[in-house]
Amino acid sequence: MDFDIFECGDIQLQCGDTLRDAKLAYKTYGTLARGGGNVVVMPTFFTGSHSRNEGFFGPGRALDPARHFIVSINLFGGGLSSSPSTAASRQEAGNFPAIAFQDNIAAQHRLLTGHLGVKKIALVLGWSMAGCQAYHWAVQHPDLVLAILPFCASARTSPHNFVFLEGVKAALCADTQWNNGDYGTQPVEGLKAFGRAYAGWAFSQSFYRNGRYRDLGYESIADLLDDWAEDHARNWDANDLLAKIATWQAGDVSAGPEFEGNLEKALASIRARTILMPCAQDLYFPPEDNAYEAQHIPGAKFRPVLSEFGHCAANPGNDAGFTAQLDTNIAELLNA
Amino acid sequence: MDFDIFECGDIQLQCGDTLRDAKLAYKTYGTLARGGGNVVVMPTFFTGSHSRNEGFFGPGRALDPARHFIVSINLFGGGLSSSPSTAASRQEAGNFPAIAFQDNIAAQHRLLTGHLGVKKIALVLGWSMAGCQAYHWAVQHPDLVLAILPFCASARTSPHNFVFLEGVKAALCADTQWNNGDYGTQPVEGLKAFGRAYAGWAFSQSFYRNGRYRDLGYESIADLLDDWAEDHARNWDANDLLAKIATWQAGDVSAGPEFEGNLEKALASIRARTILMPCAQDLYFPPEDNAYEAQHIPGAKFRPVLSEFGHCAANPGNDAGFTAQLDTNIAELLNA
Repeated sequence: MDFDIFECGDIQLQCGDTLRDAKLAYKTYGTLARGGGNVVVMPTFFTGSHSRNEGFFGPGRALDPARHFIVSINLFGGGLSSSPSTAASRQEAGNFPAIAFQDNIAAQHRLLTGHLGVKKIALVLGWSMAGCQAYHWAVQHPDLVLAILPFCASARTSPHNFVFLEGVKAALCADTQWNNGDYGTQPVEGLKAFGRAYAGWAFSQSFYRNGRYRDLGYESIADLLDDWAEDHARNWDANDLLAKIATWQAGDVSAGPEFEGNLEKALASIRARTILMPCAQDLYFPPEDNAYEAQHIPGAKFRPVLSEFGHCAANPGNDAGFTAQLDTNIAELLNA
Repeated sequence: MDFDIFECGDIQLQCGDTLRDAKLAYKTYGTLARGGGNVVVMPTFFTGSHSRNEGFFGPGRALDPARHFIVSINLFGGGLSSSPSTAASRQEAGNFPAIAFQDNIAAQHRLLTGHLGVKKIALVLGWSMAGCQAYHWAVQHPDLVLAILPFCASARTSPHNFVFLEGVKAALCADTQWNNGDYGTQPVEGLKAFGRAYAGWAFSQSFYRNGRYRDLGYESIADLLDDWAEDHARNWDANDLLAKIATWQAGDVSAGPEFEGNLEKALASIRARTILMPCAQDLYFPPEDNAYEAQHIPGAKFRPVLSEFGHCAANPGNDAGFTAQLDTNIAELLNA
């Protein structure tokens, strides 16, 4: 086991339910500096994990464990932190409660401030659902978070993004083996359908038109689709995927009693230095939503990147140009 | 029955199989002019029919049965022309052969020239799969077709379009009730999943962001998704949908012995006056593919339209601005 578990105990959730015996799986890299000014928080993305986050930093890069204390924390539902597939009895499988981004951030906050002794966070950053968590960190803890860098993400899940997720969910749940979450064995056909339906959204039209899948080692589109289908069937629990999608679909920094759905007011409350970095060809986190956010977050910089890889531009190893700009933006935020 | 059936007999298909006792369901509007110069051909789109094509013409419009002889012809697989749900014995359901656009055009050609006595076609036009057929008409019969106007369509189905279709297919086929096409009753859950997965592609991101679904009479996104799911479950046969998707996915004007996959050569062979009219926000027939085609079709005009309705901009009644530009382009081609 290459990670640690933080026992959160029972957590009162935004939905009103309680998540019992909640666990956060996390890993730290580097050393907390005297004075504590080198803390970087990395939540995980949809199919991410602390280990997949490792592609975003390394020796000599803008984020480097030789200089930074990186805390990589697995999302609830990801299979390592509390998830339908691992939950305490009576909350397993289809009985897992609805988890908001706010609930993830509340638990992560307890880990960081209570357990790890963190007093300031230099930067929260991440791709996709991880980036969504960065916004939530900035809104929920404006005095703690000095900078955020969400890439291919948004502060509130857009209506179209919600609809796209309804589509991939429908593909999974069409498999009667899923049985409303009460399955003995995984709904393999549904998981494969989920992967195949997702693949059209993950990359841009020109990624497919120009055969960029060859850059990723696929000989053909059929190869790519089969691999996405097999990956989902082999590596994921259906209820875990659905739990994370529920978190994603409900994503909204303004949800809750403080902002009561007023997105602009929630964004205006952010004190963190902010760079928003969408991929212009992302089909479900299109740059328009970030451009709007940037108008409301004080001082926010809006820096879209062109990449045929679309949403997956940010996946480590896919697009060197995206990675270079990511590192430039990270360095700017850390060295301000 | 508000349409006629043309008995094509046995048809030798591009795939090598034979479609037995092939039938084309069609309807004509207006009168064939002396001299025959007023023939307009309208193939049907994916979920289209001759009656749904009626939204593209009418009294006082650019296309008007008072002046034009409009021949609206149902696509194989659409449920009225030969389809898995209606095919002759031993070709029904999952045994229905693969039908190419070329096969549709060959049968339509027999109806028009053999049965209806047509000598020239003033215009072939259509939305989406119907527009794809317009290109095929122009390539297969350059001496017969004077003009084409495909809107939200392409001459060869793009790789991303293929992938998007794999996704909605996967959603349908994840329902074990589908049973490889050999079902006793419709795979209702799969049909619903197909509709839900399709809805994210049919409109643009800003359609959902800006609540344009209200313009279509939906109170909420949930309403829209439920309606799309129910519509597919109620009105479609699963194998019919899959047969049409197979036609769509294989769409390529250059397929076959004459052009051997050389798209540019096939496009260069078009003699019809051509206007290509994509919607700039179409997620699966993006304008880039048409811009490329326009470089290779002699004299082709490339006229993208902006519409938040995305691919469904062309659905009659959705976007008055799109309709107005469509009529302008039709008039230009018919009056040249």
